[in-house]
Amino acid sequence: MALRAVSVLKRGLGGPGAGLLRSGTFLLCASQHRLEKMPSSIGFPATSRPFSSHQILVDVNQNLGVATIKLKNPPVNSLSLELLTEFVISWEKLENDKSCRGVILTSNIPKIFSAGLDITEMCGKNAAHYAEFWKAVQELWLKLYTSNMVVIAAINGSSPAGGCLMSLASDYRIMADDPKYTIGLNETLLGIVAPFWLKDTLVNTIGNRASEHALQRGLLFPPADAFKIGLVDQIVPEDKVQSTALSMMSEWLTIPDHARQLTKTMMRKPTVDQLLKQREADIQNFVGFISKDSIQKSLHMYLKFLKERKG
Amino acid sequence: MALRAVSVLKRGLGGPGAGLLRSGTFLLCASQHRLEKMPSSIGFPATSRPFSSHQILVDVNQNLGVATIKLKNPPVNSLSLELLTEFVISWEKLENDKSCRGVILTSNIPKIFSAGLDITEMCGKNAAHYAEFWKAVQELWLKLYTSNMVVIAAINGSSPAGGCLMSLASDYRIMADDPKYTIGLNETLLGIVAPFWLKDTLVNTIGNRASEHALQRGLLFPPADAFKIGLVDQIVPEDKVQSTALSMMSEWLTIPDHARQLTKTMMRKPTVDQLLKQREADIQNFVGFISKDSIQKSLHMYLKFLKERKG
Amino acid sequence: MALRAVSVLKRGLGGPGAGLLRSGTFLLCASQHRLEKMPSSIGFPATSRPFSSHQILVDVNQNLGVATIKLKNPPVNSLSLELLTEFVISWEKLENDKSCRGVILTSNIPKIFSAGLDITEMCGKNAAHYAEFWKAVQELWLKLYTSNMVVIAAINGSSPAGGCLMSLASDYRIMADDPKYTIGLNETLLGIVAPFWLKDTLVNTIGNRASEHALQRGLLFPPADAFKIGLVDQIVPEDKVQSTALSMMSEWLTIPDHARQLTKTMMRKPTVDQLLKQREADIQNFVGFISKDSIQKSLHMYLKFLKERKG
Repeated sequence: MALRAVSVLKRGLGGPGAGLLRSGTFLLCASQHRLEKMPSSIGFPATSRPFSSHQILVDVNQNLGVATIKLKNPPVNSLSLELLTEFVISWEKLENDKSCRGVILTSNIPKIFSAGLDITEMCGKNAAHYAEFWKAVQELWLKLYTSNMVVIAAINGSSPAGGCLMSLASDYRIMADDPKYTIGLNETLLGIVAPFWLKDTLVNTIGNRASEHALQRGLLFPPADAFKIGLVDQIVPEDKVQSTALSMMSEWLTIPDHARQLTKTMMRKPTVDQLLKQREADIQNFVGFISKDSIQKSLHMYLKFLKERKG
Repeated sequence: MALRAVSVLKRGLGGPGAGLLRSGTFLLCASQHRLEKMPSSIGFPATSRPFSSHQILVDVNQNLGVATIKLKNPPVNSLSLELLTEFVISWEKLENDKSCRGVILTSNIPKIFSAGLDITEMCGKNAAHYAEFWKAVQELWLKLYTSNMVVIAAINGSSPAGGCLMSLASDYRIMADDPKYTIGLNETLLGIVAPFWLKDTLVNTIGNRASEHALQRGLLFPPADAFKIGLVDQIVPEDKVQSTALSMMSEWLTIPDHARQLTKTMMRKPTVDQLLKQREADIQNFVGFISKDSIQKSLHMYLKFLKERKG
Repeated sequence: MALRAVSVLKRGLGGPGAGLLRSGTFLLCASQHRLEKMPSSIGFPATSRPFSSHQILVDVNQNLGVATIKLKNPPVNSLSLELLTEFVISWEKLENDKSCRGVILTSNIPKIFSAGLDITEMCGKNAAHYAEFWKAVQELWLKLYTSNMVVIAAINGSSPAGGCLMSLASDYRIMADDPKYTIGLNETLLGIVAPFWLKDTLVNTIGNRASEHALQRGLLFPPADAFKIGLVDQIVPEDKVQSTALSMMSEWLTIPDHARQLTKTMMRKPTVDQLLKQREADIQNFVGFISKDSIQKSLHMYLKFLKERKG
């Protein structure tokens, strides 16, 4: 759906657009002011204020009001409890910074955006740990999906399961067009089931039928197919992912923040409320499932299999 | 979605279709009777009974049982309180006329279908006026979206905001294929937010993701892109818009009215009920928003800007 | 949507996929075990245990764990009460057979998948009969839509109304690509209205707008158009329908049953619950409608018309 959509603003005030603006609609000064503050060309920041934690690198371009978050948890950006915790702390810092209007979410590791949840967090630990971990996974989704900032996912590598979750919770998804990379929710393939709120997010994005099909079969889509079903909004050559994200961000930031935020909330609130009102039950459901002897046994065998392969 | 859909009736009674009709399905005589009454070729009406008000022109082709409503509020068909009031009165007249089975909705002004709500109704007036205006906007949507008649929008020009609302509330949308024209809900671009029931109508038409994207960014789509995402059903050269609307209407009118109306109600009632059960709250929400000092100040400045451009 | 979706498993453990499996995700042994049991090539079954009733032919391939159900009610596979009853009995037998993991649903009659409900069941009988018949129609849908087995529709001929219902309730739809065949819910064309749960199933499959359009107009789609709107998932030459169904089934059966079943339930339960909680009201609604003098008169006249054509 990367369409040649044309805004009244971009078309200028000549032609039919002018008539529209003149008599039927209006333009708030607040938004004009914002537009005037935007740089006329998007380049690399003059000033940049990086702040980072162990697994989360953050660059803030204060001129543009745009932050870039890079995931850095080698080898495959597994979503460990540590990473999730650092992510949420960094996110809140940005959300509370009124000068920051947009975030580009990307990976610092070549070929992989994120491989999804860290299996070692779900294996051989106690129920309290599983609960803490799952609550952090929920929190990741809540922070992303309800953000007041414009969130653009610059998907510069494979993005299964939890990687796809982060992409889906963004406002716009740009993926590197390399058929070696795939994106999707492959939970069933691994014997597990996506949580209902992740299913809802997928349905909101690609519709009911495509979701049912993809979720039942655990399908992972190469970029071209992901684009075709609307799982990503745009595919570009790998070396254009970051620059495209920045230029799309500048498009999004022409929209007055307040009206955009209210619109986003109107669209997403029903889905978010479903989790908020049964968050604890969702945690208990996960803990119960993951604690089963059969599941734990399988996880242990799989970890052992992985270790032997490495060794 | 202008597909080569083939109905049993059109395919005649030979071939496999015949078998279907013979043993597994049935055809009510009522509908056959209606079909026989339909003229074999669609041409311009032999007899026509025009009735008009100041801003709404109505032609009724009694042979076909089809009315054409033309909006006429120069320069850009702004939806003023007067136009809305006249529209609803004309509409009710048609709805109560049992011989009228379909309405074609179009513009009497070149290049513009409708520019949307009239800004002067929302600026410098009192709360009672804003409330009356918004109730009229709701009523426009309710009349269109719940009509027992087949409603076809012949979109012969640009159609932002309120113009798009009228199109979306129709049963079928045909747009002039001129890239200078655009259609969409550009509210955020202007600092405001589409009401929830208009958002629901958009979601019902183009799905959740395309709606979220278009609404957040206030996108206006040229005809080809509008067609691609399903915002309009058909695009034709500008000089074919009216004739295509008439010939599509004849297709729709081959369907027995009662079954079609029950089906339409089944599809749209949940969305309509959402507004009906919070109509007053929706009015108060609009009045509260539009009465804000900051909004009024912006509107005044914008109107002044428009006057200076004209002068 | 027959995409080139690539699963981690199929891509092997080399390349970036390996990294994903190694650290971020896991693979239950149960599912691996199932994979190892799957034959490396799909051919015709070595052993086959057919069981049939009068109108339902069942073949079970015990090696593959796949059954094939063929409808056989000449001339057009009308869904009579007898056929529906036999179908449900056969279905329950398969559902209770733990070795049976998938069902291919097809027709034993050339050129027709099913013409839909048998009109003679709805004409000149008493209310108790209509109620029994409608309950059987509901049961057909419930059995198909909630099945624990993978259900693939091999649509080898026309599939209007009730035929389309069976297809929609499957997990995957493959249709013979012959433009003489059509599929769709043409109820309004015949003066009747699809029940709400069938409408819901259509919306779940092709979305709200395409459903509204198709249902209001009673559209029947040739295979290419049905594929374009997502009413079927794949179109293949007529002589490839059965083999494609079998090879797609083998794809679906690589997914661990339990995770796939839970996912399917998560997707479909809300729709199913709507019928379950008002099943009796839905029956009474049908009985009331079909018992009307005007409807019965039309049905009698139509049956007479059919007899005269035959005679």
